[in-house]
Amino acid sequence: MATKRIGILTGGGDVPGLNGVIKGVTYRAHEMGYEVVGIRRGWEGLTHLKPGSTEDEKYLIPLNRDNTRTIDRTGGTWLHSSRTNPRKMKKSALPPTLDRVKAESMKVGEDRYDITPIVLDNIATLGLDYIVPIGGDDTLSYSRSLHDAGMHIIAVPKTMDNDVQGTEYCIGFSTAITRARAAIDRQRSTIGSHERVGVFRIFGRDAGFTALYTAFATMTRCVIPEFRYDVGHLAELLATDHAENSSHYAIVITSEGAIWEGGEIKEVGEADAFGHRHKANVAELLASEIKGRTGLDTIHSDLTYDLRAGEPDTVDVFVSKAFANIAVELIAGGQRGRMLAIRDGRYGHSRLPSQEDTAVSVDTSMYDVEQLRPRYDGLMGRPLMLGHSVDSMSSPFSG
Amino acid sequence: MATKRIGILTGGGDVPGLNGVIKGVTYRAHEMGYEVVGIRRGWEGLTHLKPGSTEDEKYLIPLNRDNTRTIDRTGGTWLHSSRTNPRKMKKSALPPTLDRVKAESMKVGEDRYDITPIVLDNIATLGLDYIVPIGGDDTLSYSRSLHDAGMHIIAVPKTMDNDVQGTEYCIGFSTAITRARAAIDRQRSTIGSHERVGVFRIFGRDAGFTALYTAFATMTRCVIPEFRYDVGHLAELLATDHAENSSHYAIVITSEGAIWEGGEIKEVGEADAFGHRHKANVAELLASEIKGRTGLDTIHSDLTYDLRAGEPDTVDVFVSKAFANIAVELIAGGQRGRMLAIRDGRYGHSRLPSQEDTAVSVDTSMYDVEQLRPRYDGLMGRPLMLGHSVDSMSSPFSG
Amino acid sequence: MATKRIGILTGGGDVPGLNGVIKGVTYRAHEMGYEVVGIRRGWEGLTHLKPGSTEDEKYLIPLNRDNTRTIDRTGGTWLHSSRTNPRKMKKSALPPTLDRVKAESMKVGEDRYDITPIVLDNIATLGLDYIVPIGGDDTLSYSRSLHDAGMHIIAVPKTMDNDVQGTEYCIGFSTAITRARAAIDRQRSTIGSHERVGVFRIFGRDAGFTALYTAFATMTRCVIPEFRYDVGHLAELLATDHAENSSHYAIVITSEGAIWEGGEIKEVGEADAFGHRHKANVAELLASEIKGRTGLDTIHSDLTYDLRAGEPDTVDVFVSKAFANIAVELIAGGQRGRMLAIRDGRYGHSRLPSQEDTAVSVDTSMYDVEQLRPRYDGLMGRPLMLGHSVDSMSSPFSG
Amino acid sequence: MATKRIGILTGGGDVPGLNGVIKGVTYRAHEMGYEVVGIRRGWEGLTHLKPGSTEDEKYLIPLNRDNTRTIDRTGGTWLHSSRTNPRKMKKSALPPTLDRVKAESMKVGEDRYDITPIVLDNIATLGLDYIVPIGGDDTLSYSRSLHDAGMHIIAVPKTMDNDVQGTEYCIGFSTAITRARAAIDRQRSTIGSHERVGVFRIFGRDAGFTALYTAFATMTRCVIPEFRYDVGHLAELLATDHAENSSHYAIVITSEGAIWEGGEIKEVGEADAFGHRHKANVAELLASEIKGRTGLDTIHSDLTYDLRAGEPDTVDVFVSKAFANIAVELIAGGQRGRMLAIRDGRYGHSRLPSQEDTAVSVDTSMYDVEQLRPRYDGLMGRPLMLGHSVDSMSSPFSG
Repeated sequence: MATKRIGILTGGGDVPGLNGVIKGVTYRAHEMGYEVVGIRRGWEGLTHLKPGSTEDEKYLIPLNRDNTRTIDRTGGTWLHSSRTNPRKMKKSALPPTLDRVKAESMKVGEDRYDITPIVLDNIATLGLDYIVPIGGDDTLSYSRSLHDAGMHIIAVPKTMDNDVQGTEYCIGFSTAITRARAAIDRQRSTIGSHERVGVFRIFGRDAGFTALYTAFATMTRCVIPEFRYDVGHLAELLATDHAENSSHYAIVITSEGAIWEGGEIKEVGEADAFGHRHKANVAELLASEIKGRTGLDTIHSDLTYDLRAGEPDTVDVFVSKAFANIAVELIAGGQRGRMLAIRDGRYGHSRLPSQEDTAVSVDTSMYDVEQLRPRYDGLMGRPLMLGHSVDSMSSPFSG
Repeated sequence: MATKRIGILTGGGDVPGLNGVIKGVTYRAHEMGYEVVGIRRGWEGLTHLKPGSTEDEKYLIPLNRDNTRTIDRTGGTWLHSSRTNPRKMKKSALPPTLDRVKAESMKVGEDRYDITPIVLDNIATLGLDYIVPIGGDDTLSYSRSLHDAGMHIIAVPKTMDNDVQGTEYCIGFSTAITRARAAIDRQRSTIGSHERVGVFRIFGRDAGFTALYTAFATMTRCVIPEFRYDVGHLAELLATDHAENSSHYAIVITSEGAIWEGGEIKEVGEADAFGHRHKANVAELLASEIKGRTGLDTIHSDLTYDLRAGEPDTVDVFVSKAFANIAVELIAGGQRGRMLAIRDGRYGHSRLPSQEDTAVSVDTSMYDVEQLRPRYDGLMGRPLMLGHSVDSMSSPFSG
Repeated sequence: MATKRIGILTGGGDVPGLNGVIKGVTYRAHEMGYEVVGIRRGWEGLTHLKPGSTEDEKYLIPLNRDNTRTIDRTGGTWLHSSRTNPRKMKKSALPPTLDRVKAESMKVGEDRYDITPIVLDNIATLGLDYIVPIGGDDTLSYSRSLHDAGMHIIAVPKTMDNDVQGTEYCIGFSTAITRARAAIDRQRSTIGSHERVGVFRIFGRDAGFTALYTAFATMTRCVIPEFRYDVGHLAELLATDHAENSSHYAIVITSEGAIWEGGEIKEVGEADAFGHRHKANVAELLASEIKGRTGLDTIHSDLTYDLRAGEPDTVDVFVSKAFANIAVELIAGGQRGRMLAIRDGRYGHSRLPSQEDTAVSVDTSMYDVEQLRPRYDGLMGRPLMLGHSVDSMSSPFSG
Repeated sequence: MATKRIGILTGGGDVPGLNGVIKGVTYRAHEMGYEVVGIRRGWEGLTHLKPGSTEDEKYLIPLNRDNTRTIDRTGGTWLHSSRTNPRKMKKSALPPTLDRVKAESMKVGEDRYDITPIVLDNIATLGLDYIVPIGGDDTLSYSRSLHDAGMHIIAVPKTMDNDVQGTEYCIGFSTAITRARAAIDRQRSTIGSHERVGVFRIFGRDAGFTALYTAFATMTRCVIPEFRYDVGHLAELLATDHAENSSHYAIVITSEGAIWEGGEIKEVGEADAFGHRHKANVAELLASEIKGRTGLDTIHSDLTYDLRAGEPDTVDVFVSKAFANIAVELIAGGQRGRMLAIRDGRYGHSRLPSQEDTAVSVDTSMYDVEQLRPRYDGLMGRPLMLGHSVDSMSSPFSG
């Protein structure tokens, strides 16, 4: 068996579990006699690499058992990350080493450059046989472009929102709920001591899975981006919860992207010296609405970066190590263009997501639009970690 | 729809998540207009209940939203538990209210009484339409006897060992690994600071799943009851780990029931005043062997009751609430003789375990008998939480 | 020794440790043969009590070993709390049972009523020999009024800000730092993975102790209400930290009340339907300033209610139990008008705070106004938990 | 001001907080323009250093901001530790590079060598102006020998047992209690669910402080090495606790060195192949005694290495950073022969402990020999973290 040279990178927002994948791929690949190169700062590592260099320390680090031994005990990504998308670069973000004339040949729109040729050059320089990108929709759909250009890709899905098509689970989702649940359960005592309504805001502009399943676990109300709601009705439900709870408090979780009918998240205040205006905080606005409508004291609490912080929980430890090992087996088997996945509750793989795939979203089989809370009925047949199941028989992700 | 009266009880060792099932069943049943009676101290509640009483506070508590509202935030079982098996009672354990003559009619062996008739009397007195027993093999296989006697049973599997037939997951398994992993990761600093070999002992007389998957998560060696091993070989592997680790330490996990070839867990010391002799601690013996063979400093650390302590982790929160809700739906649908289960990675149900079913055990597809560690290859097709999968097509648990 | 009847209440914001005081007083008092009555919802329990009632369950609960046994394992206050100050009631907040004419006789200013006579009546009805109020400046200075009116008071200081005069330590301070430190250390991985500047906001409108000593523990920059600062200078310091840190990130903690020179926390946006306008979040504004000045990516994270949530840490467990037991000993000894305290690093007591006492604040011996961080020099002679020491020789709190 | 070269080392058992001292000394020393050399593996670093070497990587590491930046977030000691005492070396432990003849000249007893001259040679080779040893009685009293030989020493006390003379607090004590408390509180649910008596064993052969103050915090019984006890009386107390607790359980903590009257911790079993016999576990023996005497079900649980594992708690973070900074100030001020200390509840320093100093131990002002539990009375005047206070006026440690 010939040796192989694998590049690995992390793109987009970090989640606990990324380092487990990096370590797992490194350990398993070394057992098989493969080399692993860490590419730093996501796709930026392949756009901004010093041209022709195989030793640019800013963007490259050879990975081995010794330098990855302890990384899986902490969150974040040891390779660092960026949101660079080589297909949609702004002029101001182009690599400084890029020739201006060459750059203009890659212009694909108003202040928009597709510098994939640079990425392919760098991959060639580095002699990579495979790339293992770890990321969400953006990172993975760019890897699809490289796949289309002939590059060998085995991808790993991660996102706190659990909304990538083709898999029932993305790394980071369980830990996000673990953190959110801990924070909400801790804050019950202060909310109850003052007989308040607590409004918790959770990351999630478009998908409500994290808010929904945190609410499932904590048995609280929640509002999510997929469904506009009647804020008066929510206020009534919370007032009833408050009255019926023997400790006289109530809790609602709002995704940052959840808006009530007639509501709007405005930019507020004057622009600062740098031209930025601030977005109102949806939890603060909602807390104010609830107070106004019910007369109850309210507080709002933001659960944001903490949900992607700290060590991975047991699910993310298991999944990150399993995905890593299966990824190397897929590489050994010569497969390409595949994304690791949980399908039918089991470890498997799907085709790479493409830009055309829409993200998964919550539907009414999971969310009770009357009660503004998760549904607890009809769970039979759901995967262990709940949410949608990916049917291996009929899905476009098979084959 | 006529109302129903549901009895719920917990038997055997407690695990985090039991209270989530109790609360979940109570909440959902009340939504459906059913009554729920908590039976205290496992099957003892149905053997020792004051005859004819429906209000014996020692053994009965009506459950409602108010008294179960906060119980799911802690481990243990709010209903308390016992290891009482009504089919195998010793004379000394018979209910004091039981008539001696009547008792002798139930004698089934040398100091062994099957007082199932008492249990059935008490069920009749309480007017229970359904019993929801939550437990492991012992508790559930007794419920099978009641099922055979015509009682309506919907059972919920729990056990830290994850070794109940017919389900890929039992409540408590993930939390046990969460606790074990946390303890081992915490103790790495002290083991490393002194350049030691750390030997961790984990509950598990017959099944090695908890030790195995803790080792998987922490990437350490492990020895388990299913496979006798060569202690000299283990010592060599650990000495190599110790030498190659840049912080100069090594870790091995031993199930309490794992013995090396030629090894034996003796009773040690003289009997105490009450006639008890003490079993040697396998971790202590193994640590001593390793020290003797390698010259390395060793410590041994017991991870026992802590693995079943504290609040449930996210998996056990999800599974306990899902099992509870599906259980009530099965009751509403008139099903009987079923055990909640994860099958093919999804929520479903199986037939009740019987006494003839053998517990599940670790096989060589999961455990590397050469390296004395979990296998990281061949994970494709495994359930999310690893271990065996229950094939819905061919299993005797279907139908 | 005649028996005594002790009333206990908690006022103002809750902190972990309050329940430890309630339990500790109850246990110790019962050992001494005293009765303990829990007064619910702070001073509101003594203003809104049903006139003449000794059994108003909304506001009274007899305390004993059984009902306080487990309360010290969680945060919050089992007696609930309010911000009611009987000396400064608004008309709309007056007890509904209060006669209008009588009320007018207690008017002391524009929409301001001092209903201390009602409080004294209720104390008489309840037959209380002693009141043990647990609270911060507001709660305790009202107890001083009762003391001046002849009531026997032994008070216990609590506040996350640690700014009560006459004691080196207030219950809740250590736990707040424990929580803040944990959150910041968890979030380092996400801040570092994206090479950002993290801005953490911590409760504290007037006193910067919590921000300061969290910064001390985490070795980060901080800005506090006591000192206006040059935001350009802060941006430069953070840019340097960011450049010199091998993981390329930097952290600053801001008290919610810390403003830079020329800065202002405006109300932003239009008034909502209830007439409220929202205050800008100082961390968001500061993050924006730093981004504008340095070009570095920034995030802001709020550490607010979480700091008063969850179980008490070891310091707050020790102090709450010790204060409780000494409080009962002071009662047994017939002392009155005293507040429990740490003085010279030891358990002791001071006179009750009065409205004239100014809160303690951070000075330049603790805070480095050049480096915008805590001082690490000159710690000799400070109390174990740092901050000011209360000199038993010269303080007005002695005697 | 001339530069200084400081050696720093950690000896004996590790505790959380050691790395905070190492980092704190390094940061502060660098600000002052001093050099810091990490000496690895305690005093072994100064006995086994390659003779004449200033670059022996096994035993030396130059410390700077970059390599100590993150070490304070974990327990253990980044410099590793050993129990080497250069004054009491066995022949088999002598450095292999040591000339046999020279060695014999240092023989001070039966298989006992005092190789302090080697240590002094190595110190001279390394050009150290100061040594900062961090350790307990053994480590510190050896530093006293070096002090007597003219070396400049500023020592830092650490020990889980909090029993070093001359200071009210040793690093590691609070974290040990934090860990023990968490474990006991977690295990309450399993002990209660089965209505058991839980026996917890805690490190402490000679001093009972850790057991005592864990019992104080958890309000449980405890038995300690300082006082032999009547095991029948203990059994009765626990049976009463069990009966009176509404959840029917009881807890006792035993120091590993606590023995009842007539009790004995025997070596048990036959010697293994390496000649070791095993000591019986005191918790197991005690649990068996209690079961025999009361008929109650018992469990025993060992809290040993976990108490010195994990990150330091807030007290140990504060104290480690404060001790480190004051240590460097003492060095800058030319002081020598001092040990950092908490005295009268404040940061200060004492003379170095000597071999003649006896360890501090628990007395009857802290321990209730009738009730077999901590005393909750007479706490007035105790230091914040309880225990003995060191009176700065009269102590032999002053001056």
